[in-house]
Amino acid sequence: MASLFSKHEALLQEACKALGERSFYTPYPEHHSAWGENGYKEGEKAFTQHLNRPFEDLMASGKGQLTSDEQSPWTLENLGIRYPKVSSDTLLEEAKAASKAWKQAGVEMRTGILIEVLERIKGRFFELAHATMHTSGQSFMMAFQASGPHASDRALEAVAQAFLEQNRYPETVRWEKPMGKFNVALDKTFRPVPKGIGLVIGCSTFPVWNSVPGIFANLAVGNPVIVKPHPGAILPIAMVVAELQKVLQEAGFSGHEVQLAPDNFDAPLTRELAEHPAVKLIDYTGGTSFGKYLESLPNKVLFTEKSGVNPVILDSVDDLKAVLQNLAFAVTLFSGQMCTAPQNFFIPKGGIKEGDQTIPYQEVVEKLRKSIEGLVKHPKLGPGTMAALQSNRTLDRVKESNALGAKVVLEAHAFRHSDYPKARTSSPTLLETQASEVDLFESELFGPIAVVVQTRDTHQSIELASQLAARQGALTCAAYTTDPDIERAIQEAMEEAFVGVSFNLTGYIWVNQAAAFSDFHVSGGNPAGNASFVNADYINRRMVWIGHRRLVS
Amino acid sequence: MASLFSKHEALLQEACKALGERSFYTPYPEHHSAWGENGYKEGEKAFTQHLNRPFEDLMASGKGQLTSDEQSPWTLENLGIRYPKVSSDTLLEEAKAASKAWKQAGVEMRTGILIEVLERIKGRFFELAHATMHTSGQSFMMAFQASGPHASDRALEAVAQAFLEQNRYPETVRWEKPMGKFNVALDKTFRPVPKGIGLVIGCSTFPVWNSVPGIFANLAVGNPVIVKPHPGAILPIAMVVAELQKVLQEAGFSGHEVQLAPDNFDAPLTRELAEHPAVKLIDYTGGTSFGKYLESLPNKVLFTEKSGVNPVILDSVDDLKAVLQNLAFAVTLFSGQMCTAPQNFFIPKGGIKEGDQTIPYQEVVEKLRKSIEGLVKHPKLGPGTMAALQSNRTLDRVKESNALGAKVVLEAHAFRHSDYPKARTSSPTLLETQASEVDLFESELFGPIAVVVQTRDTHQSIELASQLAARQGALTCAAYTTDPDIERAIQEAMEEAFVGVSFNLTGYIWVNQAAAFSDFHVSGGNPAGNASFVNADYINRRMVWIGHRRLVS
Repeated sequence: MASLFSKHEALLQEACKALGERSFYTPYPEHHSAWGENGYKEGEKAFTQHLNRPFEDLMASGKGQLTSDEQSPWTLENLGIRYPKVSSDTLLEEAKAASKAWKQAGVEMRTGILIEVLERIKGRFFELAHATMHTSGQSFMMAFQASGPHASDRALEAVAQAFLEQNRYPETVRWEKPMGKFNVALDKTFRPVPKGIGLVIGCSTFPVWNSVPGIFANLAVGNPVIVKPHPGAILPIAMVVAELQKVLQEAGFSGHEVQLAPDNFDAPLTRELAEHPAVKLIDYTGGTSFGKYLESLPNKVLFTEKSGVNPVILDSVDDLKAVLQNLAFAVTLFSGQMCTAPQNFFIPKGGIKEGDQTIPYQEVVEKLRKSIEGLVKHPKLGPGTMAALQSNRTLDRVKESNALGAKVVLEAHAFRHSDYPKARTSSPTLLETQASEVDLFESELFGPIAVVVQTRDTHQSIELASQLAARQGALTCAAYTTDPDIERAIQEAMEEAFVGVSFNLTGYIWVNQAAAFSDFHVSGGNPAGNASFVNADYINRRMVWIGHRRLVS
Repeated sequence: MASLFSKHEALLQEACKALGERSFYTPYPEHHSAWGENGYKEGEKAFTQHLNRPFEDLMASGKGQLTSDEQSPWTLENLGIRYPKVSSDTLLEEAKAASKAWKQAGVEMRTGILIEVLERIKGRFFELAHATMHTSGQSFMMAFQASGPHASDRALEAVAQAFLEQNRYPETVRWEKPMGKFNVALDKTFRPVPKGIGLVIGCSTFPVWNSVPGIFANLAVGNPVIVKPHPGAILPIAMVVAELQKVLQEAGFSGHEVQLAPDNFDAPLTRELAEHPAVKLIDYTGGTSFGKYLESLPNKVLFTEKSGVNPVILDSVDDLKAVLQNLAFAVTLFSGQMCTAPQNFFIPKGGIKEGDQTIPYQEVVEKLRKSIEGLVKHPKLGPGTMAALQSNRTLDRVKESNALGAKVVLEAHAFRHSDYPKARTSSPTLLETQASEVDLFESELFGPIAVVVQTRDTHQSIELASQLAARQGALTCAAYTTDPDIERAIQEAMEEAFVGVSFNLTGYIWVNQAAAFSDFHVSGGNPAGNASFVNADYINRRMVWIGHRRLVS
C-alpha cells in the first residue's frame, strides 16, 4: 500500500506548496457542472435509497440500531435511517485496539490512504449534496460545494499540513559533541507520537465541512477518531466515515480507526464520550454554552469553533449599490445560518461617504433594507439563496427577535419553494438600534437576523466592532472605507481582537467565504474558537515529538 | 537598527539550520576556559559588587525598593540586594504602553535586538555564574554552563524557531479565483499577531536556564514580558532583564518591553499578576500544586514545566561498572536538584545480565550503592559534583525520606566544602523498596533521593515506569538493555507516556543533559509539563495568524 502514497504524491506536493504560498488552489472544482451531467439525478436517487432503512455501509461492532431523528428541512419528513448503534465502551475499545497499528503505519501510509479516500469521495459529491440538503437545509448548490469540493479541500489541507509537520525533523541523526580529545556520539531518533483517541463533534448546519478537518488531521497523525455527528445531521458524515473505513480495510487496517457514534436528541452521547479519560482530543463545532462545558473538562486537547458576532463597518464607499448588494447576499445566503455571516452593521449617524457625496444615515439603512428585500423577493434568486432553516429553534429566534427592543426595519416572513412547498423558511429580519443598546446586539443571533447599529462616528463603529469581537468572538469582519487612515485603524483594532478584515468586497466574493489553502477559517485568537483551519497548531497539538537517544559505542 | 539583524543574520541562519537538523550546534562553548583566563575572578568581583546595595541596572517606574530574601546556599548569608519595586498595575500599564511599538517593530528588528542581547550577555557569563551559584546552590562549573552558554543556546533556539514560524507565510499574496469568464482577485496580507502580555515565573534552582526560553520566545513574536523570579533567585535573571532593557532602549524602544517583578517569600506577587486579565500568557517552572492552580485560571495560554518522576530501567548491560558510574553521577549531580535527574531505579528481582553472566539483584543494588558512595566520598570530585542545597525544604525532604518506609541502603549526610564551610549540603540517600509499594515512589522526591524498586521482571519495570510517567509525569528515562526486543518494548511503552528514552548511556554523557537545537526539553505530552523547549507549539501558541483581504478592483 505504499503505492497509495506514490499514487497521490504529486497532489500532496501541490497542496503543500499552496499551503505555504496561500495562493488559490483547489484540486476539486466547486461547481457541480464540472462533475458530470447526470450527477444531480443520480445523487438524488442514491440519497433516496438511504431513506427508511438500515445504513449498512458502516462497520458495526454489535447488533444495536438507532433510528435517527434526522428530518429534512425541505420536506419536514423524517429520513427514517437506522444506523448501527454501539456503546461508548465498545467504541473506545475498538479505537484503542486499532491505535497501535495505525500509529505504526507511518506518515506516508496514512497520508496515501487519506488522499485515496478523498479521491473516492469525489464520486459521491452529488449524493453527499442531497444528504446535506436534507439534513442541514442548505440549497443544492451550497450543499454540493460545502460538503463536496470545499470540504475535501479543507480535508486535503489538513492532510498536507500534517504531512509537513510530521516531516519537520529528521527521523535519525548522528549527534557528535566535541569534548576536546574525543567526541561523544549519540544516535538520535525523532518521532511524532499521536496523542490518542480523538472525538469529533459535528454540527447540524455544516455536517461535513466542519468535521472533516478534525477527522483527517487526527487520522493523518495517527490518532483514531470517534465521530459524534449532530443528531439532526448524521447521514452526510456517515457516508464519509464509511468511505474511510472501506479504504482502511482494503489497506489491511481494521477500519475502526474511525467510527461513527450516532445518537438521538433525547439520549445524547456526547458528554459520556467527551468525559471518558481515554478520549484525549476533542474537536467541537457548535454553540458557546456547550463549548464552555467542554473547556471545563480536564486533560483534553480541545479544538473549538463556537459562535461569533461578526461586524460590518461602513465608513465610505465608491459605489454604495454594489456594496449593499454584496452585503445583502452575505446576510441572506443560507438564511444567515453560517458562522461567518455578518450580523451587526455599524453605520455612523452622520451617514457614509460615496465618492464626494455624503449619504445620510437613514438613506443608507433604507437602501440596505431595499437591497435585502430585492434579493428576498427576486423570484429566481431569492428562495435558492435563502434555502431552508435547519431547525425550529432558528425559526423561533427570528420571531423572538421582534421583541428584542429594536426597531424592525424589515420583517421576516416565510416564503415558498416551488419544489418543496413544505420547507421551513424565513426571510431575514433587519433590526435597527443605537450603539448604547449593546445588550441587544452583543450576542450571536444565529439565523437570518441582522442589526443596524447607529454609531456616533466610524471611530465608535471600530471600537464597538473590536470590543465585541474580543469579548464575544468573531469569525469575520467586513469593512468598507476609501480612507487609508481609517483602513489602517480598522485593521489594527480588529487585530487586537484577532479578526481578519475583508475590505471593500463587492461582486462575486463575500465575507462569509473562506478559501482553503489561503484563508484561515477562525483565527483561534478570540472567543469564537481556539482552532484555526488549518494552521500548524491545528496539527501539532494532536501529536508529541519524542526524541530517543542511543550511545554510539 | 535594521543593521542588528544584518549583523547577526549569519548566526541566525546557522541556528535555524541546526534546529531543523537536530544536529550538534552551539555558538557558545560550554567550558569557561574558552571565555578568558581572568573571568572567574572578575565575575566574582562583579557579583560581589551587587551585594548589600541597590540593583541599579534596571529601569524603575517608581521609587519603591524591595530588599530581597536571596541567601547564598554556599555561605548562608543574605545577599541584601535591593531591587526596584513596582506595583502590578504599573508593570502592566508600562507593558501595555510598550506593546504597540514592539508589535510594529517587525520580525527582523525584534530578532536582531534579541541576538544582540545574547552577544552582550556573553561578556557577563562569569558574573552570571557567580550570581547563579549564590542563589541556586549550583557549583561554579554548572552555574557557568547552565546560566551562561546553555541558557543562551536555549534563548537563541527560541529566537530562531520564532523567526522560522513568523516567516512561515508570505506577507502579501495576490489570490485569483477563476470564475469562468473572469477572475475574482484579492490582495491578501498575512500577519502573525502577538497575543499580549506574557508573565514568566522562574524557579530557584535554574533561575536563568528555565526562564530565558519563555522570555525570548515572547519578545521574539512581539509580546511584552513581566519576569517574576523566584524570591530566592532574583539576581541572575535581573541581570538578563537589565541587558534586554539596555539594548531595547539603545534601539529606540521604551525598555518596558521586559520588566522585572521581584517579590518576597512573605508577600508573593505571582497570583496577583497571573490572575490579571491583561496577562494573556504564562510561562511557569515550578512545583505541581502551583502549576495546577495556574492551569485552573481561565483564558490564559499556559506553558508549564512542573515535576516528574524519572525512571531508570535496568535490564542487561555490557559493562555494569560503567553503567553504575554513569548513573551515580546522574543522581549525585547538583544533589539531584535537576528536574531531569533519575529517581526510581527499576531492577528485576532475578538480577540483570552483564554479557553472559547474571548479576544477582542484591549485588546490583550493592554496586549501585558503592558507586554513589565512591563519588560522594571522592575528595576531588564529590563536593563539587553535589554542590549545595538551594533550600532548607530540600534538606528536610532528605531527612523525612528515612521515614518513608523504605529500606535505607545509603544514608545521606552533610559534607564539607573547603571553600564554603557553612554550605547547606547533603549527599544522596538511596532507598530500596518493592514494586508493590508504589505510594512510596510514585511522587517526585525532589533533591538527592533515589529509590531502588525491586520488580518481578523487566516487563514489570517497563510497565511501572510507563504508568508512573503517564500519571505523574517524567522528563527523562534512562534504560539499559542489550536485547533489541526489550529495547523496542521500552521505547514503545515510554512513548505511550510521551517520554524519550536515553539508552545505554555511559561515559561523559548523562540522562540529565539535554542539548539545545537537538534534544527537546520536556515532551509536553505528560503531566511533567505541557511545554517543550523549543518546538513549534512553543512559538505558535504565543501568536495568532491573521489574514486580511482587499478586493482588487
